Amino acid sequence: MSAQASRVASTRTLVNTAAARKNSRAARSATRAQAQAPKLDINTKVFEKELVDVAGEQEYIVRGGRHLFSKLPEALKGIKSIGVIGWGSQAPAQAQNFRDSLAEAGMNDVTVSIGLRPDSTSNAEARACGFNEKDGTLGETFDVIAKSDLVMLLISDAAQAKMYPRILAAMKPGSTLGLSHGFLLGVMNSEGAKFREDINVVLVAPKGMGPSVRRLYEQGKTTNGAGINASFAVHQDATGNATDIALGWSVALGSPFTFATTLEMEYRSDIYGERGILLGGVHGIVESLFRRYTRAGMSDEDAFKNTVECITGPITKIISTKGIKAVYEAVDDKKTFMEAYSAAYKPCKDIHYECYEEVQSTNEIRSVIMAGDRFDRFPMGKIDETYMWKVGTEVRAKRVESEIPLNSFTAGVYCACMMSQIDTLREKGHSYSEVCNESVIEAVDSLNPYMHARGVAFMVDNCSFTARLGSRKWAPRYDYILDQQAYTAYDNKVGVDSELESKFMNNPAHIAIAKCCELRPSVDISVSTQGSDGVGGAREQNKMG
Amino acid sequence: MSAQASRVASTRTLVNTAAARKNSRAARSATRAQAQAPKLDINTKVFEKELVDVAGEQEYIVRGGRHLFSKLPEALKGIKSIGVIGWGSQAPAQAQNFRDSLAEAGMNDVTVSIGLRPDSTSNAEARACGFNEKDGTLGETFDVIAKSDLVMLLISDAAQAKMYPRILAAMKPGSTLGLSHGFLLGVMNSEGAKFREDINVVLVAPKGMGPSVRRLYEQGKTTNGAGINASFAVHQDATGNATDIALGWSVALGSPFTFATTLEMEYRSDIYGERGILLGGVHGIVESLFRRYTRAGMSDEDAFKNTVECITGPITKIISTKGIKAVYEAVDDKKTFMEAYSAAYKPCKDIHYECYEEVQSTNEIRSVIMAGDRFDRFPMGKIDETYMWKVGTEVRAKRVESEIPLNSFTAGVYCACMMSQIDTLREKGHSYSEVCNESVIEAVDSLNPYMHARGVAFMVDNCSFTARLGSRKWAPRYDYILDQQAYTAYDNKVGVDSELESKFMNNPAHIAIAKCCELRPSVDISVSTQGSDGVGGAREQNKMG
Repeated sequence: MSAQASRVASTRTLVNTAAARKNSRAARSATRAQAQAPKLDINTKVFEKELVDVAGEQEYIVRGGRHLFSKLPEALKGIKSIGVIGWGSQAPAQAQNFRDSLAEAGMNDVTVSIGLRPDSTSNAEARACGFNEKDGTLGETFDVIAKSDLVMLLISDAAQAKMYPRILAAMKPGSTLGLSHGFLLGVMNSEGAKFREDINVVLVAPKGMGPSVRRLYEQGKTTNGAGINASFAVHQDATGNATDIALGWSVALGSPFTFATTLEMEYRSDIYGERGILLGGVHGIVESLFRRYTRAGMSDEDAFKNTVECITGPITKIISTKGIKAVYEAVDDKKTFMEAYSAAYKPCKDIHYECYEEVQSTNEIRSVIMAGDRFDRFPMGKIDETYMWKVGTEVRAKRVESEIPLNSFTAGVYCACMMSQIDTLREKGHSYSEVCNESVIEAVDSLNPYMHARGVAFMVDNCSFTARLGSRKWAPRYDYILDQQAYTAYDNKVGVDSELESKFMNNPAHIAIAKCCELRPSVDISVSTQGSDGVGGAREQNKMG
Repeated sequence: MSAQASRVASTRTLVNTAAARKNSRAARSATRAQAQAPKLDINTKVFEKELVDVAGEQEYIVRGGRHLFSKLPEALKGIKSIGVIGWGSQAPAQAQNFRDSLAEAGMNDVTVSIGLRPDSTSNAEARACGFNEKDGTLGETFDVIAKSDLVMLLISDAAQAKMYPRILAAMKPGSTLGLSHGFLLGVMNSEGAKFREDINVVLVAPKGMGPSVRRLYEQGKTTNGAGINASFAVHQDATGNATDIALGWSVALGSPFTFATTLEMEYRSDIYGERGILLGGVHGIVESLFRRYTRAGMSDEDAFKNTVECITGPITKIISTKGIKAVYEAVDDKKTFMEAYSAAYKPCKDIHYECYEEVQSTNEIRSVIMAGDRFDRFPMGKIDETYMWKVGTEVRAKRVESEIPLNSFTAGVYCACMMSQIDTLREKGHSYSEVCNESVIEAVDSLNPYMHARGVAFMVDNCSFTARLGSRKWAPRYDYILDQQAYTAYDNKVGVDSELESKFMNNPAHIAIAKCCELRPSVDISVSTQGSDGVGGAREQNKMG
C-alpha cells in the first residue's frame, strides 16, 4: 500500500536479533549507543532529504524555506488546479499560504480554489480572503473536487467520515487526495473500506493549529524558514511522484522541516496529543491548580498569574528556547518542582495511556463521529465563561510580561504532564520527531501563545472539531486525577521519587527536543490580543464542512 | 434466541399502524390515552406474573417476598449445586441471600459454593462468611463451574470478557449460566461469538449494589418484601424451565419485584445509568456545587451540607417516598429551583446522550476491558482524599439529621440531571420499570444512602469495577459541563424555560415512579457509618475475579 515512505529493511536490526539471543541486555545497551537506522525512507526526486540523528535514532527529514519555492514547479508537475475543501481551522491558513507561495514561485497557471457548500456562511469568509466565484476560485464542494488535480480535504473529520465515498467517487483519475490528518484511514479501516487505486493518497499534517500555520508563514517572509513543522506520509502512489507532490505542498505551507510518518501513526499521535498536554491536559492542569491556589488563600488574580500566565508565559518561553529541563533549572524552588513532578507524573500517565488506547482502538474516532451527529441537538458550549476565565481577562488587560511569576509547583506539574506524554508516545513506538512535535513544539510554539493572548477558548476553539471535542472530553479527566491523586500525594508529603527524578534528568527526549529546535529558526509567534488575526477569532459555529 | 421472555405480538400495535396512516398525530394521542401492550412476556409455570399499567404502558412483572420461598423447590427443579463465581460487589450478597433463602425453604440438598482463584485474598472473606473448602462450599473457579447446575458468573466484567471461552467450555450440558449483567453479551457480539446451545443463559440483575442487596434482604426478615428490585432476561432456554430458574434466583435474592428485559437493553441502561445520576452524575454535581458555594462565600461545612448532605439526606428521602415532583413542592424557593433546573437540564442531557451512545456503540465495553488490562500498572486511585471529602467526614461526625438544609438550587440541579436521564432512557426505548429503577430507585434506595453514611468512595467503590471506572470517567464531565454551561446560564439570568417547566410538571415518569414504589414496601435502608456492614468496606483492591 505505502510506496515512497516505505519501511527501510534494516540489516543492523537483523544482526542485533542474533546477538540478542546470546545476551539480550548487553545487546540492547550496545544498540542504544549506536544510532538506530531510520524506519521510514523519503524517496524524493526534487528535494534534498537529510539523515539526522535525533537522540540516538536516525530519521530522514526534508528542510523547508522560502528559497525552495523555486522547486515547486518541478515538485507539483501535472498539478494545475488545487482544490481546498472546507473552511475550518486548517483550510484558510493552508489555502492562503499555498496561494502566496505559488505566486512567489511565479506559477500563475496553477490555481487554488476553495470548495464549500453553497449555503455555508464560510463563503463570505473565503471571499474576504480573496477567493471568489467570478474567477472560479470559490465553488461548490463537488464541482471543485471534480476539477482538481490535488484535492486538499480539510473538512472536519466527522464530515469526512460521512462524505468520503462521494468525495472519492468525484475525483479525477490520477489526481491526488491530500489529507492533513490520518483520521479518515481510521474510519475506513473500521469500515473495511479501501481507497481507489487510481489516485494518490498523501498526508501533510502541520503540527500546529491553522491560525498558527498562517501567522508563522507570514512571519517567515522576514525570517526565512519560520513556520510550523509538518509530518508527511505517502499512503498510495499511483502516479510515481506522490512523495514530491506532498513535499511540495509542505514546503509551500512554510514547514521548517517535514518528517516521515504513516497515516496510522499520525492519527494516533495527533488525536492523542491534542487531548493531552496540547489542549485537554493543559486546560485540566490550570483549572485544578487555580482551585488549589485560591483555596490556599491566594487572590484570584495571583492564582491566575501562577497558573495560566505562568505556563503560557515563562514556562512556554523557556521550553521553546531551551527545552524542558531548563524549566527545572530556572525555578527558584527545585525541591517543590521535583516533588510536584513526582506526584503528578504517574496520574497524568494514567490518563495519557487511557487516551492513547482509546485512540488506538478507534473508540475515539467513533466518538467524534457520534458527537458530530448530535451537534444539531447539542452544539458545543463555551468553555471560557466561568469565573476563572473572567479573572483571566482582567489579568491579561493589566499584564506586565516581565512580572509573570515562574511558580515551581505549577512548573513541576506541567513538566510532569508533558514528559509523561512524551514517554507514553515513545513506549507506543513513535519517532522522536513525531513525539517532540506532538508533545512539545506544538504546545509552546503554536498553541500556548493563543491561550496567552486571549484565554483557553481562543486556543481550543481555533482548532479542529476533533480537537475541540477531545479537549472538552479529556480536560476534566486530567483535572480530577491531579486533584485526587497528585495534589493529595504532595500534601501527604510523599516527597521526591528518585527514580522519576533520575529519568527526568537523563531523558533522551531533552536531546531530541534540542535537535528538533535546531532544525528550524527560533521565532516567537506573534498573536494579537484582539482583532481577527487574519483567520477569524475562535470559531463558534458547529456546522461541519 | 430469546425464548421465555419473548416479544409479544401486539394486535393493538397492528391496528394502530393502520390508523396511523390516516392521521398519525391524532392516532398517537389516542394510543397514549390507552395503555400500551407489554413488549416482553414472562412465561412462568411456577410464579404469578402480573400485568401492571406503568404510566400508560403495560408491563408484566413478578412480585417477590419471603412467602414465595416455598416455591423455590419447584422453580429450581434439577438444580442441586449452585456455584457463585467471584467475590466482588454482588457475589457476597447474592451468595449469602441465596443460601439463607434455600435454608428457609428447607432445601438442604442444594448447596451454594463460591469459586475463586486459590491465590485470591477473597478466599479469607468468603471463609469469614461461612463458605469453606472442608464442606466443598469454597473451591477453585473451574472446579466449581464444572460441578454446578447453576453458575452465577459474578466476576468482574473485564474478567468475564477474557475468560468466557474457558468458562463456557467448563460448564455441564443442560446447566444454566446466570449473569447479573448483560455486559458479556456486548463483548461476545463485538467478537462475533455465540453461547453454547446446550445451556440456559439467563440474567437476574439487582438494581442496586451488592451491599444494598444484602442489607435490604436482612431488613426483609422483619419487613416482608424489602429488597432491591431486579430485572431478568432469558436469553437462551435449553431446558424449557430457564424462566423459572431465573425467577427463583430473583425471589431468593429478595427482589420485591422482577421485571422483564433483554440482555442488551439491560447492559445499555445499567452501564449508562451508573455513569449518570447513580454514581458519576451525582459525584460531578456535588463537586461542582461545592466549589460554587464556597466561592460565593459559604463556609466549607455549610457548602458540604448544602450539596452532599442535602442530596443524600432530604432530597433522597423525598424522592424515595414521594417522587421527584415532591422535591419541587418541598423547596422554599421554587423560582430558584426551576431556574437551576432549566439551566442544568440540557447540559446534563448532552452528557447523558454522549454516555448512552458510547455504551450503545460498545465503545464503553472496550474501554472497560482496556482499563482492566492496565490495572497492574495503573490501579484505580482514591477519590475521597481531596479537601471536600475531608470536610465531609467532619460534617458527618457532627450531623443532626433533621437540620440538613434542603437547598433549592442544589435540588433544581439534581432533579434536572435525574429527569434528563429518565427522558434519555425513554427516548432510547427503555420500559418504565427499567427507567425508574436505573435512574431513581437505585439512586435513592441503594446508592445515595451509602454516600450519606460514609462519603463518595463508600458509594462508588462498593460497586462493580465497571461502575467504579465509569464513575471516575464521567463524574468530571458532568462537573465541567455544569460549571461551563448551567451555572453560567443561571448567573446570566437566563431564567425559567417554560417548556422545560411544563414537561417537568407533566412528565409521565412521575406516575411511573409512583407505580414502581407502590410495588414494594417502603423501607429505609440502614447503612452503618462505620464497621463492615457485613460485606466489607469500600473495596480497594484492583484484582479481578
